[in-house]
Amino acid sequence: MEPRSTPARRMPVNVRDVVVHDPFWAPRQEQLRARTLDAQYEQLVATGRLGALALTWTPESDEPKPHPFWESDIAKWLEAASYVLGTHPDPALEAKVDGVIAALAGAQREDGYLNVYFTVVAPGQRFTDLRDAHELYSAGHLIEAGVAHYSSTGRTTLLDVVTRLADLLCDEFGPGGAHHGGYCGHEEVELALVRLYRATGERRYLDLSLTFVDARGTEPHYFDLEQGRRGTPGFFGEMFPQREHRRREFFEYNQSHAPVREQTEAVGHAVRAMYLYCAMADLAAETGDEGLRAACERLWTHLTTRRMYVTGGIGDSRHNEGFTRDHALPNETAYAETCAAIGLVFWARRMASLTGHAAYIEVLERALHNGVIAGVSADGQRFFYENPLASDGTVERADWFDCACCPPNLARLEASLGSYIYATAADAIAVDLFIGSTVTTDVAGSRVVLRQDTSGPSGDRVDLTVAAAAPATWSLLVRAPSWSRSVAVRVNGEVPDGGGAVDENGYVVLRREWADGDTVEVAFDVDVRRVHASTLVAADAGRVALARGPFVYCVEGVDVDVPAHAVLLGEANPQPGATPSGVVPDLTGPAWGESRGQADQDSLYFPERAARAELPLTAVPYYSWNNRGRSTMAVWLREA
Amino acid sequence: MEPRSTPARRMPVNVRDVVVHDPFWAPRQEQLRARTLDAQYEQLVATGRLGALALTWTPESDEPKPHPFWESDIAKWLEAASYVLGTHPDPALEAKVDGVIAALAGAQREDGYLNVYFTVVAPGQRFTDLRDAHELYSAGHLIEAGVAHYSSTGRTTLLDVVTRLADLLCDEFGPGGAHHGGYCGHEEVELALVRLYRATGERRYLDLSLTFVDARGTEPHYFDLEQGRRGTPGFFGEMFPQREHRRREFFEYNQSHAPVREQTEAVGHAVRAMYLYCAMADLAAETGDEGLRAACERLWTHLTTRRMYVTGGIGDSRHNEGFTRDHALPNETAYAETCAAIGLVFWARRMASLTGHAAYIEVLERALHNGVIAGVSADGQRFFYENPLASDGTVERADWFDCACCPPNLARLEASLGSYIYATAADAIAVDLFIGSTVTTDVAGSRVVLRQDTSGPSGDRVDLTVAAAAPATWSLLVRAPSWSRSVAVRVNGEVPDGGGAVDENGYVVLRREWADGDTVEVAFDVDVRRVHASTLVAADAGRVALARGPFVYCVEGVDVDVPAHAVLLGEANPQPGATPSGVVPDLTGPAWGESRGQADQDSLYFPERAARAELPLTAVPYYSWNNRGRSTMAVWLREA
Repeated sequence: MEPRSTPARRMPVNVRDVVVHDPFWAPRQEQLRARTLDAQYEQLVATGRLGALALTWTPESDEPKPHPFWESDIAKWLEAASYVLGTHPDPALEAKVDGVIAALAGAQREDGYLNVYFTVVAPGQRFTDLRDAHELYSAGHLIEAGVAHYSSTGRTTLLDVVTRLADLLCDEFGPGGAHHGGYCGHEEVELALVRLYRATGERRYLDLSLTFVDARGTEPHYFDLEQGRRGTPGFFGEMFPQREHRRREFFEYNQSHAPVREQTEAVGHAVRAMYLYCAMADLAAETGDEGLRAACERLWTHLTTRRMYVTGGIGDSRHNEGFTRDHALPNETAYAETCAAIGLVFWARRMASLTGHAAYIEVLERALHNGVIAGVSADGQRFFYENPLASDGTVERADWFDCACCPPNLARLEASLGSYIYATAADAIAVDLFIGSTVTTDVAGSRVVLRQDTSGPSGDRVDLTVAAAAPATWSLLVRAPSWSRSVAVRVNGEVPDGGGAVDENGYVVLRREWADGDTVEVAFDVDVRRVHASTLVAADAGRVALARGPFVYCVEGVDVDVPAHAVLLGEANPQPGATPSGVVPDLTGPAWGESRGQADQDSLYFPERAARAELPLTAVPYYSWNNRGRSTMAVWLREA
Repeated sequence: MEPRSTPARRMPVNVRDVVVHDPFWAPRQEQLRARTLDAQYEQLVATGRLGALALTWTPESDEPKPHPFWESDIAKWLEAASYVLGTHPDPALEAKVDGVIAALAGAQREDGYLNVYFTVVAPGQRFTDLRDAHELYSAGHLIEAGVAHYSSTGRTTLLDVVTRLADLLCDEFGPGGAHHGGYCGHEEVELALVRLYRATGERRYLDLSLTFVDARGTEPHYFDLEQGRRGTPGFFGEMFPQREHRRREFFEYNQSHAPVREQTEAVGHAVRAMYLYCAMADLAAETGDEGLRAACERLWTHLTTRRMYVTGGIGDSRHNEGFTRDHALPNETAYAETCAAIGLVFWARRMASLTGHAAYIEVLERALHNGVIAGVSADGQRFFYENPLASDGTVERADWFDCACCPPNLARLEASLGSYIYATAADAIAVDLFIGSTVTTDVAGSRVVLRQDTSGPSGDRVDLTVAAAAPATWSLLVRAPSWSRSVAVRVNGEVPDGGGAVDENGYVVLRREWADGDTVEVAFDVDVRRVHASTLVAADAGRVALARGPFVYCVEGVDVDVPAHAVLLGEANPQPGATPSGVVPDLTGPAWGESRGQADQDSLYFPERAARAELPLTAVPYYSWNNRGRSTMAVWLREA
């Protein structure tokens, strides 16, 4: 489906202005605050990341050797912690945050430079390996953290640090700078600079972002030029030998295979791609650049119609942590990095802001409720880096990773969840996600408090209540999710004018004079449904996925007495049952299992098909799998 | 199925004593002689392998740098060429063979050592990296070539070279030798030494083979000891860092994780495993060692009931060119190296010789007709290294490989095919494979010529004709293949005594006084059948493979107007039709295809299932796929 473009630009809502009181999400946020952030802080200490900011590492010291992108892990933790502080006073957390900011300030060089690796390990090599060294990527995360800290707490301690860093980047990479023409192999700084521009109003940050984005993929290729100057392979040189026949593949890996306005397919490392596309959408919104907007829409269509798992996971291959070919969506070997699904959420929100179209929120919701939150265990302390859609029982979450991008990325997304639920325009409030919460915002010149209550995260009913000092005319936009066959709306108990039809952007538009105490009741259809994949997806041929509301389900071997892949659905769908994994119900009902008993162990090939026996099926929400030990798992199921 | 052990040891037949005149195999052998061996010789020249034998490489020279296992490629070519010369005079080929032998003799050191890499590239490092450097592996292939050349031509030019090499190995690795206790990371020399013992009668070669096999996997571990002495990682050190937690995985890679008599599961690099198991079976046969025999039977059962593709391909993972987990048999990413299927043929024949049981021949036949010969294109000039059982259309054969083990390995197997068709015992001839051919052999003290004619390589009728100077009493054993529901035998037109029942070893035993002109007529059932996999194999759940006789079939996208994975079989099996790919018929008939047309391109997920339309199906023998350009392919098919 090609989203129809409209000029209806939306603004995201500040995290601080939303209180989440949803029975599903609020406990997750509380767990994040009370447990996960502490656990991640301990990992930052234990792995040497925070200690490295003292700049005391030497080749002779016993300290762990700093890595070029350690700052990014610190920054994402800081960003998450800042969002938490914006909505929940927590003196202990605040003290940790202040300590980390002070350490970062202490590690910053006089000229604004801030990267421990290139300060103490390879001091002469600053900005010589943009392709592989993640130097600007780390700077970008620091900048995002600085903006988040400022917007959440109003304090400028970290913003001051990162503006000095950003000013250095402007000098070095802006017109006339020593490194003008260069850009980072791992995109991130581009979107961070737009955020910094929005926070400070300083146009030069926006300009530098556009400079980075415009330089990408142009010839002569910067990564060739810098390699020539350097005379050595990059940081990852051994991994990706620069043989001519691999040159294109390598440049696709970091989306520098073509100028961004000419790119038509989502390729390469999935997280990198998402962060680039985020910046392109931001720049299109800020500058009205139609070329960037058109490229974003092309890339979006390609990604979501050819290369996206039903869970919103993206990037099928471990080899490049990214994309391979159209319709290549293997389930057991799906890479579907948690960070990539998070990146898709980031990009989707920006596309929705740019176009006002609900189709983007649909994908955001899919990724958020499935591919993203599968990344963390029920206790908030174990993490998936990869998110397969089937398992032979050998996969489980880990405490932490050498490359620790995913845990703090999850943290910053969950901590900022409030800002994804609503969006505003000059005279409209859009309800994008159905998550119990209260937003305070200005619309049509007056302050409005909109409260949303739901009958659960996959519930069939949403109640909206307006609180306002005085009546005002504005539009309330309620997204009509495609997972509901119908959306029935009542305003103050009455069917509204026009019957609550869905507009071309995918919303029910309720335009009226809204007064204090007005209520809107929204009813959805949340019947269990079967999802079928394109017949071009070999991995899903002859299979269906169970879904209800925004949640995709899976079967775990622990619930059935055959491996998950040997389960077949019967005619009737399983129905909502108990909710052991939280407030989202499991689905239960009769199904079928295939087995030959011991014979299946004693031989591989048989002249006859296996016997089928009825079994009681339990399907659990995909995000909740692997919380009861190792087990086989399957999202895509056969039908009997 | 656990093969029942019997004491009925069989002897293989010399390649020279069998003339293959089968309509399927004879043209393949002729193509090998007339084309493939020349093409491979040219590759040996073009890649520098033959030139390297002049020992003129220096770091400053322009010559390609020799690799430690280049001799193995030369040796396998020599072995194949020798078999050809044994059955088919070819002066041009003989001249090439003699030239290569002379070059090898010239490269041999005075003490018998023969390896170019360790002579000119790393002269001080002889026998210091047995784990990774393939030094003894290459020696083993040279020894096999020497034995093959001698037994096929009666000449000792190459045998003399390799016995001098083997004598050096006895001195170095035998009791009291400087490297006693060592063994090769890539097994091969062990089985080669048994062949050399059988050819020469020199017991010390058998003893050295047993020394190598017995030392394997004992503690202290030789690969630790040599690494300690060397003080540097091995040749592949970077690939397999010797971190403690990877130690076991690394030792499983080369089957040195445990003493061989204690091994219970087929693990690690598949080709290495096969070559080791070959030597174990050979040694069990020569020495009566019950421990080795029991280990072989355990490993066989494990391999064939848990880790073997329906094509006889083995080793599911590219990562280690080998095995991962039980029932892990992914189709699209199947590694199933051509050499591993060949190795399985080698081992199966040895197990059949050791036990007299037809179950081993069953697997041999499966691998030979499917996983092995899929490795070469119809024109004999392009090769698969990996043999997936499904393809998205991106896979195709290549001209040659940097690691060129498979093409000459295929050549030596096809050239020696005659020796796999029959086996003999003191007073018996076993017909193991149904391949048109004539064998000349001694049985029960008299010379017998047995001719086999078939109604095609998957035909329903085999005619055997005895030629003998005088009548003699012996047993004719006709294998009863499990792919035929029935085996009907007539001797001189009459049902024999006992009705031709199948014995516990899987043969119809016809014991009588055989006279010149006696005939045996064997009728098989070659109905097309559907093969079902164990329900523990996730990749094949809900799918069937089509087979007829020993051949497994597949569907190629080029024959249907949907991708191969979108085909569903109907109720009736497709039936033998045209034979465009040779004498083995394609299967044709109505089937179903799933498609949503353009919608499948425009979206990924749908609420409704795709429409099914009847289509005319053509299934081709698996071995013949990818001879008509790139195309999607699937062995395992859904049923409508």
